[in-house]
Amino acid sequence: MTRRDDTRTAVPPGPADPRRPRADRARQVADVLRRQVLHGDLRSGALPAEAELVREFGASRNTVREALALLRAEGLIERCPGVGTHAVAEKYPHGLERLLGLAETLREHGEVANEVRMTGLLTPSREVASRLRLRAGEQVVYIERIRRLNGLPLSLDLTYIPRDLGEPLLAEDLVRNDIFVLLERIAGRPLGRAEVTLEAVNADPHSAATLDAPRGAALLMLERLTHLSDGRPVDLEFIRFRGDRITMSGSMNRA
Amino acid sequence: MTRRDDTRTAVPPGPADPRRPRADRARQVADVLRRQVLHGDLRSGALPAEAELVREFGASRNTVREALALLRAEGLIERCPGVGTHAVAEKYPHGLERLLGLAETLREHGEVANEVRMTGLLTPSREVASRLRLRAGEQVVYIERIRRLNGLPLSLDLTYIPRDLGEPLLAEDLVRNDIFVLLERIAGRPLGRAEVTLEAVNADPHSAATLDAPRGAALLMLERLTHLSDGRPVDLEFIRFRGDRITMSGSMNRA
Repeated sequence: MTRRDDTRTAVPPGPADPRRPRADRARQVADVLRRQVLHGDLRSGALPAEAELVREFGASRNTVREALALLRAEGLIERCPGVGTHAVAEKYPHGLERLLGLAETLREHGEVANEVRMTGLLTPSREVASRLRLRAGEQVVYIERIRRLNGLPLSLDLTYIPRDLGEPLLAEDLVRNDIFVLLERIAGRPLGRAEVTLEAVNADPHSAATLDAPRGAALLMLERLTHLSDGRPVDLEFIRFRGDRITMSGSMNRA
Repeated sequence: MTRRDDTRTAVPPGPADPRRPRADRARQVADVLRRQVLHGDLRSGALPAEAELVREFGASRNTVREALALLRAEGLIERCPGVGTHAVAEKYPHGLERLLGLAETLREHGEVANEVRMTGLLTPSREVASRLRLRAGEQVVYIERIRRLNGLPLSLDLTYIPRDLGEPLLAEDLVRNDIFVLLERIAGRPLGRAEVTLEAVNADPHSAATLDAPRGAALLMLERLTHLSDGRPVDLEFIRFRGDRITMSGSMNRA
């Protein structure tokens, strides 16, 4: 008897198996709902009633409640007593396919305005100099900005630009314009390729405070080296996006 | 006098301005060092001594110490008394350019093994059915896996596959193989395009425990719908990567 139970335990349980923890079933429901909240017809609309979700997912009422609690904890939905549950996500799509500045990519979602926290010349470390292909001792323009969409902080951007392009940049309106657009105008040629690295990191206390986010909030961290169309590297950026405000979407090919 | 000060305050401070908070200067140093820890010649090696970093970054000793503290808090470096500071990151690169399974993409870094937490048939919700282009009531195979590299948990994957491909898949070795590779063999044709959405989220307590990560740890969340080369959608996945174990890299073009 005990033997048979042992053997059974080695077989992974099926979706409806009562041995399966409710938290696993709740995650499964939450992931599908999350997609609908972010992309689907639920966006800024009402979620179906609990009873309907129970039917839709073939899940217990407690599982559905736990799934909704997960999405509430992320700030994606809200429950109003007597009214029901609705999506509240202020989460905006940033394309992964084409290299676009934030104002360009979010044009249809509202107005991007940048708070320029500091600008200035500095002698970069060897690592930064080598990525921008500068000679030792050559200075760069450094720019630090908080970027807001409709007044909400989206990201904190640290930017290094070679001096010949960076100094004319500082004379431009950095509050209303993407650096990408200004760089192309100043360089007189389009940007080409960028190498990007994405990570998820917990915000340190100071970065969290700067972005009006809770301490430890998940950030999407983007490091990006952008080249002009002639291959010259001209823009090295370290960008912390608030994880609760940005999604990145694109497509990938197998071949 | 007061007027002049007010006017001055409106000008962003330069990099060496003493009014600039040390936390801002520390972040600036940490971001460049972080890149070197992850990609550069420091990987699994020693960091330069504090005095050398002070020279290299033109920063104060306190700023350099605060920068190192930020990287330590993320688990990227460690200080050993009497020995110095060295990189300890177990952070692996996942390509953003070509669609690859985890074992394929991390081949040079070690062995990927999957713990199959559950498998089974289920009737999907309308959202899942519609994305996989299934008729109402058609069942799918559901697979839940923890994926480990050299024994370390990297991700928790929730996968939905149409029944005609999913059932033969369950007869295969899911512990040692990527689903991508198995699907191509079963379908008799290569995979084609995938639509992906990336987010940074804080781990809920149960997902954190499942991935051996601290509660609230930053996760890179990937939702991916993969098609066969003939355009048929065959694999819908919801993947939680540990933020401290994975980076995603690729390139983007402006044109």
